[in-house]
Amino acid sequence: MEMHKENHAMTEKKNRADLDTLDHVAVSVQDVAASVSWYTTHFKCRVVYQDATWALLEFGNVRLAFVIPEQHPPHIAILGDPAAYGEPKPHRDGTSSVYITDPDGTNVEILALAKR
Amino acid sequence: MEMHKENHAMTEKKNRADLDTLDHVAVSVQDVAASVSWYTTHFKCRVVYQDATWALLEFGNVRLAFVIPEQHPPHIAILGDPAAYGEPKPHRDGTSSVYITDPDGTNVEILALAKR
Repeated sequence: MEMHKENHAMTEKKNRADLDTLDHVAVSVQDVAASVSWYTTHFKCRVVYQDATWALLEFGNVRLAFVIPEQHPPHIAILGDPAAYGEPKPHRDGTSSVYITDPDGTNVEILALAKR
Repeated sequence: MEMHKENHAMTEKKNRADLDTLDHVAVSVQDVAASVSWYTTHFKCRVVYQDATWALLEFGNVRLAFVIPEQHPPHIAILGDPAAYGEPKPHRDGTSSVYITDPDGTNVEILALAKR
Protein backbone atom coordinates (compact mmCIF):
# COMPACT_ATOMS: atom_id res chain seq x y z
CA MET A 1 0.00 0.00 0.00
CA GLU A 2 2.05 2.86 -1.28
CA MET A 3 -0.52 5.37 -0.05
CA HIS A 4 -0.03 4.20 3.52
CA LYS A 5 3.73 4.41 3.36
CA GLU A 6 3.46 8.07 2.52
CA ASN A 7 0.96 8.91 5.23
CA HIS A 8 3.57 10.46 7.47
CA ALA A 9 4.31 13.06 4.81
CA MET A 10 0.73 14.15 4.44
CA THR A 11 -0.44 17.58 5.36
CA GLU A 12 -3.36 18.62 7.52
CA LYS A 13 -5.28 19.13 4.31
CA LYS A 14 -5.65 15.37 4.15
CA ASN A 15 -4.28 15.34 0.60
CA ARG A 16 -0.82 14.80 -0.73
CA ALA A 17 0.30 18.32 -1.41
CA ASP A 18 1.90 17.46 -4.72
CA LEU A 19 -1.27 16.16 -6.37
CA ASP A 20 -4.48 17.93 -7.33
CA THR A 21 -7.75 17.23 -5.52
CA LEU A 22 -10.78 15.76 -7.23
CA ASP A 23 -13.59 17.61 -5.48
CA HIS A 24 -16.55 15.64 -6.76
CA VAL A 25 -17.87 13.39 -9.48
CA ALA A 26 -21.39 14.03 -10.77
CA VAL A 27 -23.16 11.08 -12.36
CA SER A 28 -26.45 11.10 -14.26
CA VAL A 29 -29.41 9.48 -12.57
CA GLN A 30 -33.09 9.10 -13.37
CA ASP A 31 -34.38 9.73 -9.87
CA VAL A 32 -32.29 11.72 -7.43
CA ALA A 33 -34.21 10.56 -4.36
CA ALA A 34 -33.89 6.90 -5.33
CA SER A 35 -30.14 7.27 -5.79
CA VAL A 36 -29.67 9.06 -2.48
CA SER A 37 -31.70 6.38 -0.76
CA TRP A 38 -29.69 3.54 -2.34
CA TYR A 39 -26.26 4.99 -1.61
CA THR A 40 -27.06 6.04 1.94
CA THR A 41 -28.49 2.57 2.61
CA HIS A 42 -25.42 0.76 1.32
CA PHE A 43 -22.62 3.13 2.35
CA LYS A 44 -21.60 5.43 5.16
CA CYS A 45 -21.95 8.77 3.43
CA ARG A 46 -23.62 12.05 4.28
CA VAL A 47 -26.21 14.01 2.31
CA VAL A 48 -24.84 17.54 1.92
CA TYR A 49 -27.58 18.77 -0.41
CA GLN A 50 -30.63 17.31 -2.10
CA ASP A 51 -33.46 18.58 -4.26
CA ALA A 52 -35.42 17.09 -7.16
CA THR A 53 -32.74 17.92 -9.75
CA TRP A 54 -29.49 17.09 -7.98
CA ALA A 55 -27.91 15.89 -4.76
CA LEU A 56 -24.47 15.89 -3.20
CA LEU A 57 -23.19 13.05 -1.01
CA GLU A 58 -20.03 13.30 1.02
CA PHE A 59 -17.75 10.30 1.42
CA GLY A 60 -14.64 10.28 3.59
CA ASN A 61 -12.36 11.53 0.86
CA VAL A 62 -14.47 12.92 -1.98
CA ARG A 63 -18.04 13.91 -2.87
CA LEU A 64 -20.43 12.16 -5.21
CA ALA A 65 -23.16 14.13 -6.94
CA PHE A 66 -26.28 12.87 -8.67
CA VAL A 67 -27.66 14.99 -11.47
CA ILE A 68 -30.69 14.87 -13.69
CA PRO A 69 -28.99 15.24 -17.07
CA GLU A 70 -31.59 17.65 -18.45
CA GLN A 71 -30.78 20.07 -15.63
CA HIS A 72 -27.09 19.60 -14.86
CA PRO A 73 -24.43 17.91 -16.96
CA PRO A 74 -22.55 14.94 -15.51
CA HIS A 75 -18.97 15.99 -14.79
CA ILE A 76 -15.75 15.60 -12.85
CA ALA A 77 -14.76 18.59 -10.69
CA ILE A 78 -11.09 19.18 -9.93
CA LEU A 79 -9.80 21.96 -7.69
CA GLY A 80 -7.70 24.49 -9.57
CA ASP A 81 -7.63 27.97 -11.01
CA PRO A 82 -10.66 28.38 -13.29
CA ALA A 83 -9.32 31.73 -14.54
CA ALA A 84 -6.57 29.82 -16.32
CA TYR A 85 -9.27 28.28 -18.52
CA GLY A 86 -11.71 31.13 -19.14
CA GLU A 87 -14.02 33.52 -17.33
CA PRO A 88 -14.88 31.95 -13.96
CA LYS A 89 -18.59 31.69 -13.27
CA PRO A 90 -19.39 32.57 -9.65
CA HIS A 91 -21.77 30.31 -7.74
CA ARG A 92 -24.02 31.23 -4.82
CA ASP A 93 -21.89 29.28 -2.34
CA GLY A 94 -18.85 31.44 -3.07
CA THR A 95 -17.14 28.94 -5.35
CA SER A 96 -16.37 29.72 -8.98
CA SER A 97 -15.62 27.49 -11.93
CA VAL A 98 -15.07 27.02 -15.63
CA TYR A 99 -16.15 23.92 -17.53
CA ILE A 100 -13.86 22.35 -20.10
CA THR A 101 -14.16 19.04 -21.92
CA ASP A 102 -11.72 16.15 -22.02
CA PRO A 103 -10.89 14.26 -25.25
CA ASP A 104 -14.08 12.17 -24.91
CA GLY A 105 -16.29 15.18 -24.38
CA THR A 106 -16.62 14.52 -20.65
CA ASN A 107 -17.23 17.76 -18.78
CA VAL A 108 -14.44 18.71 -16.40
CA GLU A 109 -15.17 21.53 -13.96
CA ILE A 110 -12.14 23.53 -12.84
CA LEU A 111 -13.34 24.60 -9.40
CA ALA A 112 -12.05 27.25 -7.01
CA LEU A 113 -13.39 26.98 -3.48
CA ALA A 114 -14.86 29.97 -1.67
CA LYS A 115 -12.38 32.43 -0.22
CA ARG A 116 -12.48 32.31 3.56
CA MET B 1 -16.78 25.42 4.07
CA GLU B 2 -18.09 22.80 6.40
CA MET B 3 -15.30 20.43 5.45
CA HIS B 4 -12.68 22.87 6.72
CA LYS B 5 -14.41 23.42 10.03
CA GLU B 6 -14.15 19.75 10.76
CA ASN B 7 -10.50 19.37 9.83
CA HIS B 8 -9.35 19.30 13.43
CA ALA B 9 -11.36 16.15 14.03
CA MET B 10 -9.84 14.23 11.17
CA THR B 11 -7.71 11.20 11.69
CA GLU B 12 -4.25 10.40 10.36
CA LYS B 13 -5.92 8.20 7.80
CA LYS B 14 -6.77 11.37 5.89
CA ASN B 15 -10.41 10.34 5.83
CA ARG B 16 -13.14 11.05 8.27
CA ALA B 17 -13.43 7.79 10.07
CA ASP B 18 -17.21 7.84 10.07
CA LEU B 19 -17.60 7.92 6.30
CA ASP B 20 -16.75 5.33 3.64
CA THR B 21 -13.94 5.88 1.15
CA LEU B 22 -14.52 6.12 -2.57
CA ASP B 23 -11.42 4.35 -3.90
CA HIS B 24 -11.74 5.20 -7.58
CA VAL B 25 -14.07 6.20 -10.37
CA ALA B 26 -13.63 4.51 -13.75
CA VAL B 27 -14.90 6.42 -16.77
CA SER B 28 -15.22 5.14 -20.34
CA VAL B 29 -12.83 6.57 -22.89
CA GLN B 30 -12.12 5.94 -26.56
CA ASP B 31 -8.33 6.17 -26.31
CA VAL B 32 -6.62 5.47 -22.99
CA ALA B 33 -3.34 7.10 -24.01
CA ALA B 34 -5.05 10.30 -25.17
CA SER B 35 -6.95 10.56 -21.88
CA VAL B 36 -3.84 9.99 -19.77
CA SER B 37 -2.01 12.61 -21.80
CA TRP B 38 -4.80 15.17 -21.44
CA TYR B 39 -5.30 14.75 -17.68
CA THR B 40 -1.59 14.69 -16.85
CA THR B 41 -1.11 17.83 -18.94
CA HIS B 42 -3.89 19.74 -17.21
CA PHE B 43 -3.65 18.40 -13.65
CA LYS B 44 -1.12 17.33 -11.09
CA CYS B 45 -1.84 13.62 -10.97
CA ARG B 46 0.25 10.50 -11.16
CA VAL B 47 -0.02 7.55 -13.54
CA VAL B 48 -0.24 4.42 -11.39
CA TYR B 49 -0.91 2.01 -14.25
CA GLN B 50 -1.45 2.23 -17.98
CA ASP B 51 -1.93 -0.17 -20.86
CA ALA B 52 -4.00 -0.09 -24.04
CA THR B 53 -7.24 -1.10 -22.30
CA TRP B 54 -7.17 0.86 -19.06
CA ALA B 55 -5.22 3.29 -16.92
CA LEU B 56 -5.25 4.46 -13.33
CA LEU B 57 -4.40 8.02 -12.30
CA GLU B 58 -3.87 9.05 -8.71
CA PHE B 59 -5.06 12.41 -7.47
CA GLY B 60 -4.41 13.73 -3.98
CA ASN B 61 -7.53 12.20 -2.49
CA VAL B 62 -8.89 9.61 -4.92
CA ARG B 63 -8.03 7.70 -8.09
CA LEU B 64 -9.47 8.14 -11.57
CA ALA B 65 -9.47 5.21 -13.99
CA PHE B 66 -9.98 5.25 -17.74
CA VAL B 67 -11.47 2.13 -19.27
CA ILE B 68 -12.21 0.94 -22.78
CA PRO B 69 -15.84 -0.07 -22.32
CA GLU B 70 -15.50 -3.27 -24.38
CA GLN B 71 -12.84 -4.49 -21.94
CA HIS B 72 -13.78 -3.07 -18.55
CA PRO B 73 -17.08 -1.60 -17.40
CA PRO B 74 -17.18 1.98 -16.12
CA HIS B 75 -17.79 1.94 -12.38
CA ILE B 76 -17.49 3.55 -8.97
CA ALA B 77 -15.37 1.62 -6.44
CA ILE B 78 -16.09 2.04 -2.75
CA LEU B 79 -14.06 0.40 0.01
CA GLY B 80 -16.08 -2.10 2.00
CA ASP B 81 -16.69 -5.77 2.63
CA PRO B 82 -17.39 -7.45 -0.71
CA ALA B 83 -18.37 -10.68 1.06
CA ALA B 84 -21.46 -8.89 2.32
CA TYR B 85 -22.63 -8.68 -1.31
CA GLY B 86 -21.58 -12.00 -2.83
CA GLU B 87 -18.55 -14.16 -3.52
CA PRO B 88 -15.53 -11.83 -3.61
CA LYS B 89 -13.42 -12.14 -6.74
CA PRO B 90 -9.70 -12.00 -5.94
CA HIS B 91 -7.48 -9.80 -8.10
CA ARG B 92 -3.78 -10.22 -8.82
CA ASP B 93 -2.86 -7.21 -6.68
CA GLY B 94 -4.31 -8.83 -3.56
CA THR B 95 -7.55 -6.86 -3.58
CA SER B 96 -10.94 -8.54 -3.90
CA SER B 97 -14.31 -7.22 -4.92
CA VAL B 98 -17.92 -7.79 -5.84
CA TYR B 99 -19.80 -5.71 -8.40
CA ILE B 100 -23.34 -4.57 -7.72
CA THR B 101 -25.50 -2.09 -9.62
CA ASP B 102 -27.17 1.05 -8.37
CA PRO B 103 -30.76 1.99 -9.32
CA ASP B 104 -29.56 3.42 -12.68
CA GLY B 105 -27.57 0.32 -13.55
CA THR B 106 -24.26 2.01 -12.74
CA ASN B 107 -21.70 -0.57 -11.67
CA VAL B 108 -20.53 -0.16 -8.08
CA GLU B 109 -17.51 -2.20 -7.04
CA ILE B 110 -17.35 -3.11 -3.36
CA LEU B 111 -13.59 -3.30 -2.91
CA ALA B 112 -11.45 -4.78 -0.15
CA LEU B 113 -7.83 -3.70 -0.21
CA ALA B 114 -5.00 -6.23 0.01
CA LYS B 115 -4.25 -7.55 3.46
CA ARG B 116 -0.88 -6.27 4.67
